[in-house]
Amino acid sequence: CADVRAAVSTSPPNIIIMLMDDMGWGDLGILGQPEKETPQLDKMAAEGMLLTDFYTANPLCSPSRAALMTGRLPIRNGFYTTNDHARNGYTPQEIVGGIADSEVLISELLAQAGYRNKIIGKWHLGHRPQYLPLRHGFHEWFGAPNCHFGPYNNKDTPNIPVYNGSHMVGRYYEDFEISRSSGESNLTQLYVRSALDFIDRQAAAGRPFFLYWAPDATHGPLYASRGFLGSSRRGLYGDAVRELDDGVGRILGRLRERGLDTNTLVFFTSDNGAAMVSRTQGGSNGPFLCGKQTTFEGGMREPAVAWWPSRIQPGQISHQLGTVMDLFTTAAELAGAVPPSDRLYDGISLLPTLLNGTEVNRPVFYYRGNELMAVRYGLYKAHFWTWTNGEDERSKGIDFCRGEDVPGVTTVQQVNHTDSPLLFHLGRDPGERYSIKPKSSEYKQTMQKLKELVAVHRAGLVPGEPQFNICDSAVMNWAPPGCEKLGRCLKGPESKPYKCPWTH
Amino acid sequence: CADVRAAVSTSPPNIIIMLMDDMGWGDLGILGQPEKETPQLDKMAAEGMLLTDFYTANPLCSPSRAALMTGRLPIRNGFYTTNDHARNGYTPQEIVGGIADSEVLISELLAQAGYRNKIIGKWHLGHRPQYLPLRHGFHEWFGAPNCHFGPYNNKDTPNIPVYNGSHMVGRYYEDFEISRSSGESNLTQLYVRSALDFIDRQAAAGRPFFLYWAPDATHGPLYASRGFLGSSRRGLYGDAVRELDDGVGRILGRLRERGLDTNTLVFFTSDNGAAMVSRTQGGSNGPFLCGKQTTFEGGMREPAVAWWPSRIQPGQISHQLGTVMDLFTTAAELAGAVPPSDRLYDGISLLPTLLNGTEVNRPVFYYRGNELMAVRYGLYKAHFWTWTNGEDERSKGIDFCRGEDVPGVTTVQQVNHTDSPLLFHLGRDPGERYSIKPKSSEYKQTMQKLKELVAVHRAGLVPGEPQFNICDSAVMNWAPPGCEKLGRCLKGPESKPYKCPWTH
Ligand SMILES: [Ca+2]
Ligand SMILES: [Ca+2]
Repeated sequence: CADVRAAVSTSPPNIIIMLMDDMGWGDLGILGQPEKETPQLDKMAAEGMLLTDFYTANPLCSPSRAALMTGRLPIRNGFYTTNDHARNGYTPQEIVGGIADSEVLISELLAQAGYRNKIIGKWHLGHRPQYLPLRHGFHEWFGAPNCHFGPYNNKDTPNIPVYNGSHMVGRYYEDFEISRSSGESNLTQLYVRSALDFIDRQAAAGRPFFLYWAPDATHGPLYASRGFLGSSRRGLYGDAVRELDDGVGRILGRLRERGLDTNTLVFFTSDNGAAMVSRTQGGSNGPFLCGKQTTFEGGMREPAVAWWPSRIQPGQISHQLGTVMDLFTTAAELAGAVPPSDRLYDGISLLPTLLNGTEVNRPVFYYRGNELMAVRYGLYKAHFWTWTNGEDERSKGIDFCRGEDVPGVTTVQQVNHTDSPLLFHLGRDPGERYSIKPKSSEYKQTMQKLKELVAVHRAGLVPGEPQFNICDSAVMNWAPPGCEKLGRCLKGPESKPYKCPWTH
Repeated sequence: CADVRAAVSTSPPNIIIMLMDDMGWGDLGILGQPEKETPQLDKMAAEGMLLTDFYTANPLCSPSRAALMTGRLPIRNGFYTTNDHARNGYTPQEIVGGIADSEVLISELLAQAGYRNKIIGKWHLGHRPQYLPLRHGFHEWFGAPNCHFGPYNNKDTPNIPVYNGSHMVGRYYEDFEISRSSGESNLTQLYVRSALDFIDRQAAAGRPFFLYWAPDATHGPLYASRGFLGSSRRGLYGDAVRELDDGVGRILGRLRERGLDTNTLVFFTSDNGAAMVSRTQGGSNGPFLCGKQTTFEGGMREPAVAWWPSRIQPGQISHQLGTVMDLFTTAAELAGAVPPSDRLYDGISLLPTLLNGTEVNRPVFYYRGNELMAVRYGLYKAHFWTWTNGEDERSKGIDFCRGEDVPGVTTVQQVNHTDSPLLFHLGRDPGERYSIKPKSSEYKQTMQKLKELVAVHRAGLVPGEPQFNICDSAVMNWAPPGCEKLGRCLKGPESKPYKCPWTH
């Protein structure tokens, strides 16, 4: 057994978090995608640890990413809405809110500890100037603040800017092409090269670094570069996976070449489950129920691989319950940084698991917007609320559980089960199909424990100021920092705030 | 590249076929079962070849096993019924039929080629004396002719006999205990020990051997021995999987110890998909639709691992379309045996794939009883008929697609799509959820090719005499060979043949 403290007391290790976008648990070869498109990730797992029971904090991009950065549930850090009950919100261009200055991000803690920090790819914690990464602990950024939706006309809606550092360097579909016909884009290649360059520079400088690598090729509209287009047997989504997998391999290879592999913890995961609304243009949630937007396992359980040669023993599989918020706590511990003690955190340090194979019990909470939908402890998961999405959307072909129908579980209306929660055993029933009978002693004993955990959670809960309540077309990316230099500032409309309409 | 013929021209290799019962594609760790219960099988795959696109010939035990043994589809070898349309049949105790003498089994070909043959476990090709393994090329047998259902009262229904060689040595639930309360049984341990003993004896004799290892612990009623009960996190099913996995490891280990590993092809697969009617007492079909009894991928696609150190290069993944019938053809080729040329075979030799990594195009046909339900070629699969199971059964809680509902696909009635087959692309849609529009050129081009392949198939098809039409309580296991010696013969009723009622 390695000594956890030994890992910390020597020069602090580099930390790389690779966060995929809308990639599902079942998209990795080692997790059962039949096309086996991820030789590099499978190798990474064979050289490190695969965590089978790792979760995001919310089944949607922005809240998931905010939770990772802050170590706190969206209900605490403000990445939710009170406009309606149990609605997923995020940061589209119209959003007024973003990450609050009062939140302490892992990038800020690591910067204080002497790390050089870079984010590559999607930020999604707010696109207004005060919310951007370089205002929140990052020293470098190459990527965009929002999803790569578009193309827009720059009249009603501006195209999304791409930043290098604190200034925009162009816009999607104008300077950074994503072909809506072929799906061709070289963005992932740019993100890989940017990562390699950053690693090279930090290696030369001998500084500890934090790289938050957040490419978004597996989020619609999907894209891949020419060399990967058509390289998979499952269309553009598989092509994107292959390119990202190749990028992962190149980044790990570069660490090895620079002699940094034994001093760098690399953690690979995804921000939410695969989007079943994307039909054949989306990923796989393996044997799990439903997908993105839902608090079923398909929406919340994520692929997760930890890699740190010489520190993490190869070939391990851990069933430790983990969450993206644990990455905050784990990174802080590795850097010897102490988060402020004036607030609660939802993460735990995964170092005992990663370095010693330890597994500890802890609850995982499944939120949708302002509602605690479910809780997991051990192998048991109780749903207090169930919802997929409404009939209004279903009638338009929007279905977060396409092809799946578990009566009483995949409900098209919000159903309150608080009085008699739906209880599942995720070991013998990973697909959440067979609820345990409320009259059984298994149910009674388990629910008592789960309710205790929820009571403790609720007692300590101080909801943050909700950031997803107000929208305004005036705050869209009309004139991002740096637009003047490029002569690319656009004129937006007058401010006209409105209540953001979150439909699911 | 290895020379295929070189493998054959030297002393013929030993052949071990490990056939699981109702184990699903998604039950292997390497194929994404979240509990990762199969370290030995995962290692076997890492040391050999994983075949991701391997199929059975029918989604039920008996026809699947008859196809494996004969290299021919059940429609040819007679393991089907014409009592009703598209009904799955098998060999319960009441069945009058069994494997016809006119069929040539791989065991017979290998016996002629000088092999010593043993079957361990479930036979399921007919339990009347003329159908038993020692009448069809096997020299040794330890196991039973039927499923281990029971316990019966030996009045209306006899308990199933267990054979050693040509004689019964006891009965399930009497001499071979399977606890219906705890699930405890040492049968898998007996089957493992019997395999090790057989390998030892053949190693000493220096004879080539064929071992058909067919344990049935993952078929209901599930069982595991004391050391494995409670060893998994998914109940008795997982315990059974862990025990079988351990057994696989012990058998491969024994081959190594005896220096036989480099001269033995071991092929691991299952006879049909996991049974979704078994709810939490069944296996996983991973991302595939429905399960046992259906011709969707969940019913027909099987886990498959080939292992032959020094001949099969380690760490390979092949997408070659394969079937259990290929094992007949492959084994015959390895033994230098030539099957009679007076009939058609459905298998192809997998040696080019296994030894050289070659992939060739070939169709796979999905039958349910007397009906060709679907065909696959390349990544395309067309359904000519769809059916899960009927409303009558559904109302009793019997559901072959529990939790899944793909409108127009998982039909509760037999639906004839022959005029406009449902076409799926299994690469981008492994779950058979999104049928390709009939107006698309992709559809038109693909269906033309598929229809050609079906026409060729139909032109050469000579249906065998159906073996599953007649049932009779008089033929049950009342007085199996050897019962006299044990004083365990029972008296059955008068012969009263009736048309077997196949409900699905
Ligand atoms: Ca996402
Ligand atoms: Ca079976």
